[in-house]
Amino acid sequence: MTPSVTLAAESELPVVRFLQQPSSQAWVEQAIAHLDEILLDHAHCERKAAAVALQLMGQYPTKPLLVRKLTAIAQEELEHFEQVNQWLDRLGIAPRALAAPPYGSALRSQIRRQEPGRLLDSLLVAGLIEARSHERLGLLAQHCPNPKLAAFYRGLMASEARHYGIYWVLADTYYDRAVVMDRLHELAAIESDILSQLHHQPRIHS
Amino acid sequence: MTPSVTLAAESELPVVRFLQQPSSQAWVEQAIAHLDEILLDHAHCERKAAAVALQLMGQYPTKPLLVRKLTAIAQEELEHFEQVNQWLDRLGIAPRALAAPPYGSALRSQIRRQEPGRLLDSLLVAGLIEARSHERLGLLAQHCPNPKLAAFYRGLMASEARHYGIYWVLADTYYDRAVVMDRLHELAAIESDILSQLHHQPRIHS
Repeated sequence: MTPSVTLAAESELPVVRFLQQPSSQAWVEQAIAHLDEILLDHAHCERKAAAVALQLMGQYPTKPLLVRKLTAIAQEELEHFEQVNQWLDRLGIAPRALAAPPYGSALRSQIRRQEPGRLLDSLLVAGLIEARSHERLGLLAQHCPNPKLAAFYRGLMASEARHYGIYWVLADTYYDRAVVMDRLHELAAIESDILSQLHHQPRIHS
Repeated sequence: MTPSVTLAAESELPVVRFLQQPSSQAWVEQAIAHLDEILLDHAHCERKAAAVALQLMGQYPTKPLLVRKLTAIAQEELEHFEQVNQWLDRLGIAPRALAAPPYGSALRSQIRRQEPGRLLDSLLVAGLIEARSHERLGLLAQHCPNPKLAAFYRGLMASEARHYGIYWVLADTYYDRAVVMDRLHELAAIESDILSQLHHQPRIHS
């Protein structure tokens, strides 16, 4: 499946087109069977997403559009982090550290070290992670047995879609579209490949 | 001068008591002569302060008070970052990367690698940086020739004071007060010592 960026605003299933492969039924079953752990991991994901945005802002301080857009993303991720923590409180789930699944570091290892590749890859990798989060929060919204928690997941989906849209717009601002699309295609294939084997620990990106 | 934590709420000059030595006249002169560069550096400081809070939240996810308080600090630093960027825009100062002064890394090199020292040192170092920022923004408010910019600096001071207060409260929550005070005394001496030689590049912490 070819990544398509135009669908974000036009389709109800933008992510499956942006991503190369949809999540497996095995992931849905693992997640629904371990919702407490998924919620804990979700909090870590929101914090890490804010940290990624901040890091990019620090690496590219001379790009005002990037700085402005990523400041907004970081702020929104922190709000979501707080909301997930409120859910953990409400459900009586004690905070704990979780080992990260290999997903994030495997994907980030694809970021080229030299410019101009580094910025492009950083934006596309961050965008792919947001796109996958969007897809998976949608699956949680669909399958979660707690209707209020399901509604919360549904509420977050729009933001995640906006976030990967922003990462794509930034890539499209600083690079030729053909270059962006080629690299997105490569990275999206790797992203789907990483998730083709279900990680044994329940995670948003297992 | 002995660090005193009780003064933050009680005195108009809490920082000079929390810090061991006040900033030199040489720093004030350097800063006022290079306000553009100071404002640019200020933006970087706000972003870095948010990143430090996020990093600590990631290192200590099982401490809900720390996570809650530092989330609020990170959000506020991001707001300030945006406000400083608006000032840069308004004054027509083009964004650029700046080499960091040795201050931050010299101070952070004092953080012990092992617990229980690591958390205590991390909180006190972050608190000292906020305390110094508070003092220096106060000096900028006092000496800046642009009255609107001076008012902006004055407005930020209260937040910085609250931030170092929060770092101190967290240290006091997780450690015996005598241990906190002893270590604060040591680190405050090092902090003043680092600043005793004016760094040749104009910075908030030169």
